[in-house]
Amino acid sequence: MFLNFNTAKYASMWNGKKDLLGMNDLSKEEIEGVIRYSSALEPLSGKGSKLGICRGEILISAFFEPSTRTVTSFAAAMHTLGGDVQTFLESGSSIEKGETKEDTIRTLEQYGDALVIRDSDPGSVARYASLVKVPVINAGDGINEHPTQALYDMYTIWKQFGRLTNLRIAVVGGLKYYRPSNSLVMGLGKFEGNKIFGICPPGLSLSKQYSNGCYEEMQINMTHLNEVLEKIKPDVVYVTRLKKEYMPPNEDTKNYFYVVDNKTMAVLPQNCIVMHALPRVWEINTEIDSDPRAIMFKQARHSLQVRMAVLALFLGHEDELKKL
Amino acid sequence: MFLNFNTAKYASMWNGKKDLLGMNDLSKEEIEGVIRYSSALEPLSGKGSKLGICRGEILISAFFEPSTRTVTSFAAAMHTLGGDVQTFLESGSSIEKGETKEDTIRTLEQYGDALVIRDSDPGSVARYASLVKVPVINAGDGINEHPTQALYDMYTIWKQFGRLTNLRIAVVGGLKYYRPSNSLVMGLGKFEGNKIFGICPPGLSLSKQYSNGCYEEMQINMTHLNEVLEKIKPDVVYVTRLKKEYMPPNEDTKNYFYVVDNKTMAVLPQNCIVMHALPRVWEINTEIDSDPRAIMFKQARHSLQVRMAVLALFLGHEDELKKL
Amino acid sequence: MFLNFNTAKYASMWNGKKDLLGMNDLSKEEIEGVIRYSSALEPLSGKGSKLGICRGEILISAFFEPSTRTVTSFAAAMHTLGGDVQTFLESGSSIEKGETKEDTIRTLEQYGDALVIRDSDPGSVARYASLVKVPVINAGDGINEHPTQALYDMYTIWKQFGRLTNLRIAVVGGLKYYRPSNSLVMGLGKFEGNKIFGICPPGLSLSKQYSNGCYEEMQINMTHLNEVLEKIKPDVVYVTRLKKEYMPPNEDTKNYFYVVDNKTMAVLPQNCIVMHALPRVWEINTEIDSDPRAIMFKQARHSLQVRMAVLALFLGHEDELKKL
Repeated sequence: MFLNFNTAKYASMWNGKKDLLGMNDLSKEEIEGVIRYSSALEPLSGKGSKLGICRGEILISAFFEPSTRTVTSFAAAMHTLGGDVQTFLESGSSIEKGETKEDTIRTLEQYGDALVIRDSDPGSVARYASLVKVPVINAGDGINEHPTQALYDMYTIWKQFGRLTNLRIAVVGGLKYYRPSNSLVMGLGKFEGNKIFGICPPGLSLSKQYSNGCYEEMQINMTHLNEVLEKIKPDVVYVTRLKKEYMPPNEDTKNYFYVVDNKTMAVLPQNCIVMHALPRVWEINTEIDSDPRAIMFKQARHSLQVRMAVLALFLGHEDELKKL
Repeated sequence: MFLNFNTAKYASMWNGKKDLLGMNDLSKEEIEGVIRYSSALEPLSGKGSKLGICRGEILISAFFEPSTRTVTSFAAAMHTLGGDVQTFLESGSSIEKGETKEDTIRTLEQYGDALVIRDSDPGSVARYASLVKVPVINAGDGINEHPTQALYDMYTIWKQFGRLTNLRIAVVGGLKYYRPSNSLVMGLGKFEGNKIFGICPPGLSLSKQYSNGCYEEMQINMTHLNEVLEKIKPDVVYVTRLKKEYMPPNEDTKNYFYVVDNKTMAVLPQNCIVMHALPRVWEINTEIDSDPRAIMFKQARHSLQVRMAVLALFLGHEDELKKL
Repeated sequence: MFLNFNTAKYASMWNGKKDLLGMNDLSKEEIEGVIRYSSALEPLSGKGSKLGICRGEILISAFFEPSTRTVTSFAAAMHTLGGDVQTFLESGSSIEKGETKEDTIRTLEQYGDALVIRDSDPGSVARYASLVKVPVINAGDGINEHPTQALYDMYTIWKQFGRLTNLRIAVVGGLKYYRPSNSLVMGLGKFEGNKIFGICPPGLSLSKQYSNGCYEEMQINMTHLNEVLEKIKPDVVYVTRLKKEYMPPNEDTKNYFYVVDNKTMAVLPQNCIVMHALPRVWEINTEIDSDPRAIMFKQARHSLQVRMAVLALFLGHEDELKKL
């Protein structure tokens, strides 16, 4: 008597994976696949491009934390793939009537073909993903991970250097509370010969669970940042924001100050690029924006191609990507 | 000298009706029509479906109260019909500059082909509809009605039982302030042989104007809910939320508490389904979610097909629905 | 080694112009072009119309101030042109994390093919436009300008009178803080034989920089508004809102009160139209809404065609408009 409701709706998964929750969901080969497909999509993601790959599919972005880049670039990615987009923000929703986030997610599942979710609680997005049959992309779960950020960071590095191996990467700042650096260290750790230097003030170490063999931490007085960078001679300086929203409210952040400015640029190698996931507050001085090595906004642009690839893959369209 | 502006724009109405404001706008036969079309649309509303029925038409959702399901499912319905969607929320709008809601609605009419409106004031949506030429769908007007909710509730019941007649339905909870139960009682009252039991605490009766011949009210001490349900042997238990947002701020809600949990499920017939318009707060315990008789989220899914049917009909596309 | 990122993306501009920031960006002939194309688009902008002119292009609306009409009509215009739309509102964005508006705009540039921007700071939109390669349309920068408003006001006047020359226009109210009247005076000043009367209370004069040879100001006690209008015999009465949001918080607005009501209508010529950019608060009494000379909502409707024309032109599609 009881009818079946859509139980076979999401038979198609990418290599048997339903969700992208963290970088350990992807093998080295799968990361290379994302980058290869992103590269194929890049010339098709400009002005006037509209693909039919996701036609008739609806992406729902559920953001329980603020966002500019992530929500907009996922929407632009889905629109360019030919799909539709709906954005759920907590304000104005039934959360205000007392609904749990779990019920909200289970409801949104009914109307979307994939969910992109951000939440301040580490591990929450994995919990939400376990409740629903549609693919879930983690767009940031508190101080844990932000895998699509790391994927487009890696795509940006690959575009600059033509490789993801044998690179020297300095990750600078308040690592303890910063999810993009967690995901990036994990992702780069899958490739040979990389050396990642975590440069942070004492107290803001990378959490152990995200570390790996290519990671070396240097806890320093951040006033000496330029000297340290000069010694390291990195290919990439990846600057992070001090995430005050995750820090204890009364924590004294005076000793955590660091800035990449023209003096820093002067000591960096000629081919070194400066990256930042944005938003920045004070940690990159705008005076360096005109330096061609400061590629933060080009990096942001790459989120478009990479999120197109991720959405297409997790919505079961790898065959169509192969034909590009 | 004065030009005519779009006066003939909305010649097409569904059976001479411009708006869907309440269940008395629809005859029994028209409700059956909505259900028949919803059923035809259901296989066409899944992953990758995109119909051309509303191509080039714009739905504007104007919500003066919070919403998760309604705003999202109307948008998904319109996108699947091939149309576009714009959502108007009070926050960030010219309401903040002192504009009346009436002027806002008359403005939105200029840019949309249909309006979906929610407001906390009973009767307000009918008032707005009288100001504009485009079809208006009431998405909830305070403690009055929510007709598309009742239509997908009825579609869900029809899917389970293959009929809308000769059913025993228990509507449980704070009926006085709950608009979906008003609309549901009115809708089911149009079909033969139904028996609706309103089970509520004293003081939270269904308002007289929504009642009809098949409705019988049982005001009880809600701690005895399970015993009463065991006696009634319903086909459907329709649980409602206590709408605190409409209750006097100091009203003591202690005696209004009720919950459907595993003990309730144990006394319900094997074929009985438990429904809820969602969001729920405490009135359905999550422990019953794994019971196949608890179909709240499947019910939510049905809003998609039913709202597709309603939008297509009131936008004048019955001929295209007939061809499905 | 460093790759080029989209530097040639926006080769196409309209007559060498990238942005529409104010009315002095347009010659008389270009204004006539906007009006001619708007007129060609009008029959194609109704129910069920969907053009392919902007297919695959994404409009991003970034609003740092509230809006109902502007954000909705730009979205409807872009959807009707076949493009996609994303709306950025400050609330829920990375502005809350300390990002500057400049960085936000530079980020949004990465995902959109054109930006529509509103900000309370005069000149800010020009500053944002200088930071990005995509076309920027000023949707209101504080007390400075709102050029697309003036363009659809002029389109409305042209629709009524069949010309934009030799007209008598009374602009009434708190001109000092009102951007649409600045843009309108500048636009009408480009056409021959017009006479614009600025009728305002002492202290709320039109700022000098927006004035021109056809503008004459009459500072009056606003209780005598009807007598003055009776003498002027205008073709158009353009009523403005007192923009309290831009006035000093303690300014006494008692002497600034003015209202256009049935008594005003009685002294106006038979062919005179009453316009308002909306929202209105108290300056137009709703009792005149049924008078066919009060065309505020028809005026709002015209924003659709005019913004379609502006978007198509600044996105480089004049050739496709010529074929309409």
